[in-house]
Amino acid sequence: MKAININNKFSVINDLWKPRVLAELNGQQVKISKVKGEFVWHDHKEEDELFIILKGTLKMMFRDRTEIVNEGEMILVPKGVEHKPVAKQEVWMMLFEPKNIKHTGGVKSHLTIDNYEEI
Amino acid sequence: MKAININNKFSVINDLWKPRVLAELNGQQVKISKVKGEFVWHDHKEEDELFIILKGTLKMMFRDRTEIVNEGEMILVPKGVEHKPVAKQEVWMMLFEPKNIKHTGGVKSHLTIDNYEEI
Repeated sequence: MKAININNKFSVINDLWKPRVLAELNGQQVKISKVKGEFVWHDHKEEDELFIILKGTLKMMFRDRTEIVNEGEMILVPKGVEHKPVAKQEVWMMLFEPKNIKHTGGVKSHLTIDNYEEI
Repeated sequence: MKAININNKFSVINDLWKPRVLAELNGQQVKISKVKGEFVWHDHKEEDELFIILKGTLKMMFRDRTEIVNEGEMILVPKGVEHKPVAKQEVWMMLFEPKNIKHTGGVKSHLTIDNYEEI
């Protein structure tokens, strides 16, 4: 029940594609991550996933098209939909998703992390 | 699976304390609302509630203290905790909360709304 400054939390992140947990509520988590470059193709069989872009421009690739998500915009990726986030320049994003979601879905990659740290 | 511009959605809201649904995922909703003035004291017995402040400064009153939540900050109000949001100047906020949450908890007020419109 304390105010959390979102930019201050980003300022201590020095890596990419490694979401940290800002808050947990109703079985869901709010995470933040800095990303740059290409993530891996994956989906989440049971979980919808929301991306809110706080800085930069994210390219969200789907198998049949690509959606550009600018700063101040958000995109919902429904469960079961394959997606691949790509960022030409560094992007700061907030995620809202179920607590037990797997980072890269059923795909294992060098980017996969198994435990989300709190921040 | 389209990018949603959050400020554009705020720009068509002309009332106060009336959250609109921006997205629904995993039984939760993302809502946005403009607020100004005093809301009512209430709690949500079963639902945690997250407030993200996108513009202005929200004063979140609890029974034993008050927390100031500035632009770019967020605050989590756990289930069962009485709270009263107050905004001296207009505040734009985003809410994350379960789909079936009641606007003013168990309290009925002239501010209570029963159906959240999509935007």
